[in-house]
Amino acid sequence: MIAAGIYGATGYTGLELVRLLQVHPNVDVRWATSESYAGQQLSDVFPCPYDLPLVHMEEAALDTVDMVFACLPHGASMEAVTGARRAGVKVVDLSADFRLTDPDTYTAWYNVPHTAPDLLPEAVYGLPELHREKIRHATLVANPGCYPTSVILGLYPLVATGLLADSTVIVDAKSGVSGAGRKPNLKTHFVEANENFLPYNIGHTHRHIAEMEQELNAAGNRTEPLRVIFSPHLLPVNRGILSTMYVQLAEALPAEQLVAHYRQMYEGEPFVQVLGAGRLATLRHVVGSNRCAISLTPLGSDGRVIIVACIDNLIKGASGQAAQNMNLMFGWEETTGLVNGQ
Amino acid sequence: MIAAGIYGATGYTGLELVRLLQVHPNVDVRWATSESYAGQQLSDVFPCPYDLPLVHMEEAALDTVDMVFACLPHGASMEAVTGARRAGVKVVDLSADFRLTDPDTYTAWYNVPHTAPDLLPEAVYGLPELHREKIRHATLVANPGCYPTSVILGLYPLVATGLLADSTVIVDAKSGVSGAGRKPNLKTHFVEANENFLPYNIGHTHRHIAEMEQELNAAGNRTEPLRVIFSPHLLPVNRGILSTMYVQLAEALPAEQLVAHYRQMYEGEPFVQVLGAGRLATLRHVVGSNRCAISLTPLGSDGRVIIVACIDNLIKGASGQAAQNMNLMFGWEETTGLVNGQ
Amino acid sequence: MIAAGIYGATGYTGLELVRLLQVHPNVDVRWATSESYAGQQLSDVFPCPYDLPLVHMEEAALDTVDMVFACLPHGASMEAVTGARRAGVKVVDLSADFRLTDPDTYTAWYNVPHTAPDLLPEAVYGLPELHREKIRHATLVANPGCYPTSVILGLYPLVATGLLADSTVIVDAKSGVSGAGRKPNLKTHFVEANENFLPYNIGHTHRHIAEMEQELNAAGNRTEPLRVIFSPHLLPVNRGILSTMYVQLAEALPAEQLVAHYRQMYEGEPFVQVLGAGRLATLRHVVGSNRCAISLTPLGSDGRVIIVACIDNLIKGASGQAAQNMNLMFGWEETTGLVNGQ
Amino acid sequence: MIAAGIYGATGYTGLELVRLLQVHPNVDVRWATSESYAGQQLSDVFPCPYDLPLVHMEEAALDTVDMVFACLPHGASMEAVTGARRAGVKVVDLSADFRLTDPDTYTAWYNVPHTAPDLLPEAVYGLPELHREKIRHATLVANPGCYPTSVILGLYPLVATGLLADSTVIVDAKSGVSGAGRKPNLKTHFVEANENFLPYNIGHTHRHIAEMEQELNAAGNRTEPLRVIFSPHLLPVNRGILSTMYVQLAEALPAEQLVAHYRQMYEGEPFVQVLGAGRLATLRHVVGSNRCAISLTPLGSDGRVIIVACIDNLIKGASGQAAQNMNLMFGWEETTGLVNGQ
Repeated sequence: MIAAGIYGATGYTGLELVRLLQVHPNVDVRWATSESYAGQQLSDVFPCPYDLPLVHMEEAALDTVDMVFACLPHGASMEAVTGARRAGVKVVDLSADFRLTDPDTYTAWYNVPHTAPDLLPEAVYGLPELHREKIRHATLVANPGCYPTSVILGLYPLVATGLLADSTVIVDAKSGVSGAGRKPNLKTHFVEANENFLPYNIGHTHRHIAEMEQELNAAGNRTEPLRVIFSPHLLPVNRGILSTMYVQLAEALPAEQLVAHYRQMYEGEPFVQVLGAGRLATLRHVVGSNRCAISLTPLGSDGRVIIVACIDNLIKGASGQAAQNMNLMFGWEETTGLVNGQ
Repeated sequence: MIAAGIYGATGYTGLELVRLLQVHPNVDVRWATSESYAGQQLSDVFPCPYDLPLVHMEEAALDTVDMVFACLPHGASMEAVTGARRAGVKVVDLSADFRLTDPDTYTAWYNVPHTAPDLLPEAVYGLPELHREKIRHATLVANPGCYPTSVILGLYPLVATGLLADSTVIVDAKSGVSGAGRKPNLKTHFVEANENFLPYNIGHTHRHIAEMEQELNAAGNRTEPLRVIFSPHLLPVNRGILSTMYVQLAEALPAEQLVAHYRQMYEGEPFVQVLGAGRLATLRHVVGSNRCAISLTPLGSDGRVIIVACIDNLIKGASGQAAQNMNLMFGWEETTGLVNGQ
Repeated sequence: MIAAGIYGATGYTGLELVRLLQVHPNVDVRWATSESYAGQQLSDVFPCPYDLPLVHMEEAALDTVDMVFACLPHGASMEAVTGARRAGVKVVDLSADFRLTDPDTYTAWYNVPHTAPDLLPEAVYGLPELHREKIRHATLVANPGCYPTSVILGLYPLVATGLLADSTVIVDAKSGVSGAGRKPNLKTHFVEANENFLPYNIGHTHRHIAEMEQELNAAGNRTEPLRVIFSPHLLPVNRGILSTMYVQLAEALPAEQLVAHYRQMYEGEPFVQVLGAGRLATLRHVVGSNRCAISLTPLGSDGRVIIVACIDNLIKGASGQAAQNMNLMFGWEETTGLVNGQ
Repeated sequence: MIAAGIYGATGYTGLELVRLLQVHPNVDVRWATSESYAGQQLSDVFPCPYDLPLVHMEEAALDTVDMVFACLPHGASMEAVTGARRAGVKVVDLSADFRLTDPDTYTAWYNVPHTAPDLLPEAVYGLPELHREKIRHATLVANPGCYPTSVILGLYPLVATGLLADSTVIVDAKSGVSGAGRKPNLKTHFVEANENFLPYNIGHTHRHIAEMEQELNAAGNRTEPLRVIFSPHLLPVNRGILSTMYVQLAEALPAEQLVAHYRQMYEGEPFVQVLGAGRLATLRHVVGSNRCAISLTPLGSDGRVIIVACIDNLIKGASGQAAQNMNLMFGWEETTGLVNGQ
């Protein structure tokens, strides 16, 4: 049994993390912070049954916990993580602050200086399917972004084995509204999002591209760097990401062979479901679970393949993956607390 | 052809009004105000094709228009209306500021003093089915609230003819999210409202009760005043109000007779649709139109009746009714610009 | 560890039951039937990860199981239950077939003769909050309907203690579309239900009234039988029931006192959440969980109270309650497998 | 004033056509057929206020009408169209039966023989922006499919002027559920489609590809035929198609220049809205209207462009375009009855 703290418990990822940790057998949530709701119970803020008191960040005692989860906006997270690491507390950071190995790349995409570059070497990109061993020994895990989780898992078996012919992949991604956060604005107003569908930040402008390209290129040992054309769209559902990816293989593979390749690459992975030939991944496969469902559709003899990868953005795309990383960091069964019948 | 101005064109009622007036053959929208978006075109603010420049309220010249629509928050509207009336310009006010004949009642419900009580005597409650003749000659029309439109139209044929046995009616009402306005807050956040349903302000606390009771009691010539138990709920749809009303008649009437009574009371009304016995009103009957659909379900021999009344809250519940009132005020065919195939 | 069979696993209640039992530590699902999909895996029929083979009902061996769940349509269920009871297998029946103690009342509401009236005396109405001890010793549990679960739990603390003044209660209920079953028809077509809201079977015609009145009158020891005016509406959400109930107390009680009374009546109940004074129950309180959330709003000095009770229709309103009943029947902790962090 | 008949008035395109023609000043709907609902009024079948009697197809007298709209399934339409043309009645066919000029191609995609190949030479593909003059003189107009309308309008300005470098375009398309028709099935069940999102028929298998490729190649005067990789997805909204298209230009063009090119190509088009540089098309731009909104996002110096084209699938993608074609065929103003303030 460990004690954990949560920075930023009243956003959607924070709330989801509380929900998951309530049923985790090895974790006691010692404190949870919220600048907006400090002094209240979580059950005052949100229609949930958890009587978890919310405190200001400065009231959150690091010497009472074995680890912290940081569910703070990028920029704000760096400071909290630095404090925790100085106190010797393990960290899973759900922000973008420690995902990019190069602080200049970080600044180029996020428009803020990186104030804790000395911590970057110890940070591990927390995608267990790629970096499981490093995560087991990590003190600071940078939990991946939601879009990148779906995209990297969908493309990894091809890039890691050099099967791609082309140095550009097209990713047409669609995300539910919880991905836009809990802070109200016109974009997330019900009447604006409902019965609507829209692209945003399309092309090569979304910040998540940086980690997709970093991880895919590191996995690929490529001569020419892979470039991701990324078009996110806002979907009128609460949860879920579906990424439709268009790639060109060096040579055509029949569907069964492609499925077999993916299943071999993900053998033993508890949270990756490679669908059989002819099946297509849907949000319904994954919403409410920590799984990533992947389907593969080769288009015939020319080597084009359409890959569909789906996750629940708040679980495998955020808080579930954070708990999975914690399980690895503390040497527990990786699926502990994460198989809830969904 | 008249020239009209719109105060507050970038809320949902303002936008809907612009949409309706664009196809109205007799109206030219001369100006539209928006404090938040002044200097932009309407098509910059909203995905619509209307190139209507938005100006600050003080730039809106009253001597260029024959009438104004005020789509402002209550309180703010009083001032704009006062200015317009001083300039001799006709007004349809979509706020609550001139709906209640008694300024003290207004203050009791809205918690602000009424700053233009001298204008109250000239204000006509703009429900054409009850006050058509007065509206024709009005200079200031107080456009009814959305909930009250559905409730008053649903009950009027009973109260006006003394058929109610009881002095209390129960109204269980459900409204789409556009009724909560365009200003983002947690209640209207997509993730909070979608896949959710919730009551709010239930009992005898919602401000719309004041106008319901005022109009029903005025229509009823009752000894004991009618009291409305009113429970609004937030429905995860963009538009529409459905009010389910539970009343007790002095004596039981079969469904056919009740339908006949309502049809006679609303004979010739272009925007009231009384459904036949055995039919039930739904949002689909009215969304996108200026109609109010009403169904009547007597419960047998004890005189209880369930009345369902539906409207589109932005059309018959706001901007459509405002245009209908304008048609009456200028002597045009009442349905002009309002029969759009929905 | 027991072995269980499921009759009718590919409707929404069957699927939800499979989902819940997959994580139940004491149950092994030995077989699951589906007339439409026999021969396939559950994961072929539905985007879920469960490799559960589906068989025809006649292939389902009763001697391999300790209990069965019947998720069949009313009428069809009687036959399956009869077979199971003859084989000495315990039953939780999710249909309406054994909920009403009087076979003539059953026939009057369901328009089919009751073919197993000899089993009725052994059937226990499976609402643990009312009949926990009987359920512990039951061999045949009639799992309550979804609407009745919300209504009975919402009214029981008043009727059981004689606090109601009136013999009529008004229940304005709203249910998500999964309550209408998985068989496609025009009513459940996405385009018909989405952005719509509608009443159906309003008044005193819905079959669930029979069990509401049976249970409330049995609990109440009343001289004049209680009558439920029941107006169900179809809500454009997947899951959830919210029942808004209007009652008249013999004498007015302040909100705090009413809350205290309900909390005392439901003391120790793991799945009933009585909200504090001033709070209102919403679908978000319960969807995904086995809880019933109840809020109480007295209207002042005249004794009227608005009660709102919410459940997830597929969990507390069906499969979760079925599992709760099984837990009681086998002497396990009542919450086993049902506290999943929601 | 002309008289028109509608074959198949109770599907979604039929209903939408009735709705549009009710407010068209020059058309009287003389009859409407429905095999399922013959003998009833349209207002019995659907919550609309139109008292239009529904008749069997054999009761529909061709000598009473000047034109017919065929809203029938492919295959069934051929027969009805043949009858109408033999009777000398003009036809707008909303099915796929006369869209493909080559009957063998038709059979290859639709798996049925073409029984009226003699009529194919007289059929004009009814996309006014490409074939306005031919439509004006046509007796038989094949109304385009919904997806093709968005895709062809989005790509036409590039293919017609030889700006594409590549012979393959990727189209990631998303459609609302009304595109799947009104006949209930599991795919269109509310609970299956709501809070879900899914690809279907992806790759090069959807039948609409045939007409996209036919029209784009005819417009392009290309040496190597253009090939469309087409991935449709089902979106949980009632109406609307958004197609995100990925193309490679022979040389990069800045956004402003690209927008200027499109605006020039569509100059004077009443129903094409080319958004300014930096804007992105959304469903909200078009739902409820006959417009197609197009946005253009060049990705920098390598010539890649992301084109987004949106329509309302039931209006510009079906019944609105059918009315637009009728307006051209009868020499009326093209926008008659189609500018309704949306």
